[in-house]
Amino acid sequence: MKYQVAIIGGGPAGYTAAEAAGKAGLSVVLFEKKNVGGVCLNEGCIPTKTLLYSAKTYDNASHASKYAVSAAEISFDLPKIISRKQKVVRKLVLGVKSRLTSHKVQLVNGEAYIEDKNHVRCGGEVFECDNLIICTGSDTFVPPIPGIDKTPFWTHRDALDNKELPQSLAIIGGGVIGMEFASFFNSLGVQVTVIEMLDEILGGLDKEIAAMLRAEYAKKGVKFHMSSKVTSLSYEEGLNIRVFFEKDGVMESVEADKLLMSVGRRPVTQGFGLENLHLATGERGQIIVNEQMQTSKPGVYVCGDLTGFSLLAHTAVREAEVAVNTILGKADAMSYRAIPGVVYTNPEVAGVGMTEESLQKSGMSYQIVKLPMAYSGRFVAENEGVNGVCKLLFAEDDTLLGAHVLGNPASEIITLAGMAIELKLRRQDWKKIVFPHPTVGEIFREAL
Amino acid sequence: MKYQVAIIGGGPAGYTAAEAAGKAGLSVVLFEKKNVGGVCLNEGCIPTKTLLYSAKTYDNASHASKYAVSAAEISFDLPKIISRKQKVVRKLVLGVKSRLTSHKVQLVNGEAYIEDKNHVRCGGEVFECDNLIICTGSDTFVPPIPGIDKTPFWTHRDALDNKELPQSLAIIGGGVIGMEFASFFNSLGVQVTVIEMLDEILGGLDKEIAAMLRAEYAKKGVKFHMSSKVTSLSYEEGLNIRVFFEKDGVMESVEADKLLMSVGRRPVTQGFGLENLHLATGERGQIIVNEQMQTSKPGVYVCGDLTGFSLLAHTAVREAEVAVNTILGKADAMSYRAIPGVVYTNPEVAGVGMTEESLQKSGMSYQIVKLPMAYSGRFVAENEGVNGVCKLLFAEDDTLLGAHVLGNPASEIITLAGMAIELKLRRQDWKKIVFPHPTVGEIFREAL
Repeated sequence: MKYQVAIIGGGPAGYTAAEAAGKAGLSVVLFEKKNVGGVCLNEGCIPTKTLLYSAKTYDNASHASKYAVSAAEISFDLPKIISRKQKVVRKLVLGVKSRLTSHKVQLVNGEAYIEDKNHVRCGGEVFECDNLIICTGSDTFVPPIPGIDKTPFWTHRDALDNKELPQSLAIIGGGVIGMEFASFFNSLGVQVTVIEMLDEILGGLDKEIAAMLRAEYAKKGVKFHMSSKVTSLSYEEGLNIRVFFEKDGVMESVEADKLLMSVGRRPVTQGFGLENLHLATGERGQIIVNEQMQTSKPGVYVCGDLTGFSLLAHTAVREAEVAVNTILGKADAMSYRAIPGVVYTNPEVAGVGMTEESLQKSGMSYQIVKLPMAYSGRFVAENEGVNGVCKLLFAEDDTLLGAHVLGNPASEIITLAGMAIELKLRRQDWKKIVFPHPTVGEIFREAL
Repeated sequence: MKYQVAIIGGGPAGYTAAEAAGKAGLSVVLFEKKNVGGVCLNEGCIPTKTLLYSAKTYDNASHASKYAVSAAEISFDLPKIISRKQKVVRKLVLGVKSRLTSHKVQLVNGEAYIEDKNHVRCGGEVFECDNLIICTGSDTFVPPIPGIDKTPFWTHRDALDNKELPQSLAIIGGGVIGMEFASFFNSLGVQVTVIEMLDEILGGLDKEIAAMLRAEYAKKGVKFHMSSKVTSLSYEEGLNIRVFFEKDGVMESVEADKLLMSVGRRPVTQGFGLENLHLATGERGQIIVNEQMQTSKPGVYVCGDLTGFSLLAHTAVREAEVAVNTILGKADAMSYRAIPGVVYTNPEVAGVGMTEESLQKSGMSYQIVKLPMAYSGRFVAENEGVNGVCKLLFAEDDTLLGAHVLGNPASEIITLAGMAIELKLRRQDWKKIVFPHPTVGEIFREAL
């Protein structure tokens, strides 16, 4: 069988590419070895947000008295939370599948193997293709800590399916995944300890805001160990897990019922014949792509986590669109200027564009405007006793370079700043947009 | 005393103009007869949203089991809800006052009277000014229904301060104000009946979405009478109020404990010497202004509800900025192309730009894309058993003409569509923006 486009990996990059190519009338085959939707839909973005919403509902009921509403005997049912999550995932996976079907995408369930740029083998069959889009994504990185072989630990995957609440949880890695699980288990009453190697959580996001979020969760009872390098693990049947780490030259340790490993993710580059393509790679081993997601081999594209630019579903989606537009001969180019990053803690954190730290490194001059979220009337109405901050960074020519927000619903409003950055709006141009009143989004306008 | 700018009315238009002019170094006097912040802050947008958030908290606790969270004995304390609202208003009024003070605005509490375009009298004193900005806003319109003089009724002001829950409430007028109060009292268990003269609620917003919201509230127990013209009211001490109305030529009536009058608002044009300016007026008596908010008299500006363009705080804010920029000699112009409208029911409704109805009237050709909100993964995760819709209207050149959304948080995401409309983005340009995943805002991207 011959296809115009073959795609390896059915995550956000893969299914977006398949849908877009199919919609444009190209013949498409999509290979997926597990479930369509990839990590994001099956064991990442969507399931975590579903769990976090149950936790938020529990939090809100517990604090309803702030809004003159009272409730008693507030409790949760973890197995039900987990099964609702599975229902949500199933519904969304079905949605993706039905869209693929409606765009006549041939979905092949199995492990694909690249023979050369025009031939992919799967389940004993060989599929011929004009264009190949590789979207194999990333996998959890488990560091070789001494003792790890004898210590039971969770990855995000296990944490999502766990139906029995631990008494205590140690989390190695205070990035986005670590903090979202810290938030979930903290809400449900688990004693959470976060151990992070860097000097602040949420590396890559605005440091001041990350510190504010950490202070918020410290108040809620989460224990943090920053600048702490885990040196070993120990575990004996029936006892707690012990995590040993070095902090300022001193050895310390934390004991916990369960351990979550969330130090990071690594692109999947092995086991599917990538080496047969002899693609040009960069210093860190990443595959080199241009703005059209084209590799050094004509007709071969790479999208998603594998590019090494970011490990975010929305980056992958946009890259996939660019790749398909390129195949279709439509002018398009990937831009990484305004990729938002969101942490679905409660309160949420979101940022887009440059941070103060990245600006300082670059040596660019910039202007900073910082406002408490209480400048938004709606924020005050809906966030009794909660603080937040909005930070905007402007270039000398008054274009927006970065925006960083702590406060709900940061996730939904950050796209406004993303648009302003991507479209290179100057602050006086952005200010001409009418924002509905009262909204939390108005905080940007107040800061202009 | 002489000022460069005199402003009459301290609502959103007035305080925005005062702040902006003061910030730019102009000498400013602001006259306000009641409270700084105007209707919006003291008895409109902000207090309603505060009450509605308490109602939402109560709703969410009552339906927590959808997310595997349970709570018992859920109740609310209306006097406390009202006093929290007062606290929120006080805090925000203080914020506005402190910003006026920090920008050296002279705030005069009292009824201003315009002697001529350069002289305003207040409290026996005469204030001289180079520029005059009139922002007197609007007031509740009470129609002369037979029997109204003998019938007790609420305006929104009374409804906001009422501390005793009625058994039943009749609302005359199913516009935004009527529907927000219908939502609030319905949540708290009051039997609500809405009587609307037009054939659909929320006149001016997308009709299909308005009908969907009506169906949603009908399910929740609100009774609706559309195309119903109220003909008379009757009331006897100790008995219920009775509202008589004509529907399809038949007389009907509704009985209720309390009556809320929300048929509309009218600009305030009397009692402050406006007539002394002899400004050019239009057919409906509205004062004619150009795109710089200038009237027929040089140096006299009109902003806010008084212009008759819309009765929305955010329109007023932008108009005030345009007026001040014009005074400062900075090029600026008011655009009404993308003024969002939001209804803070639960679920929320929001729209911006043209509606299908307005496009049909205009005769323009357009393309429509309509998606269920379930296309957003986050919407599915956070809205168990709730439906919604997103409707985009495109021109032939692929620019966005209108966007209409039913589903939370429509209020916060509608600004994204407002930006696209105001900036005349084509769908392919808008699609180049990276929206964070998973967010409800992604629904727009899905529809592109």
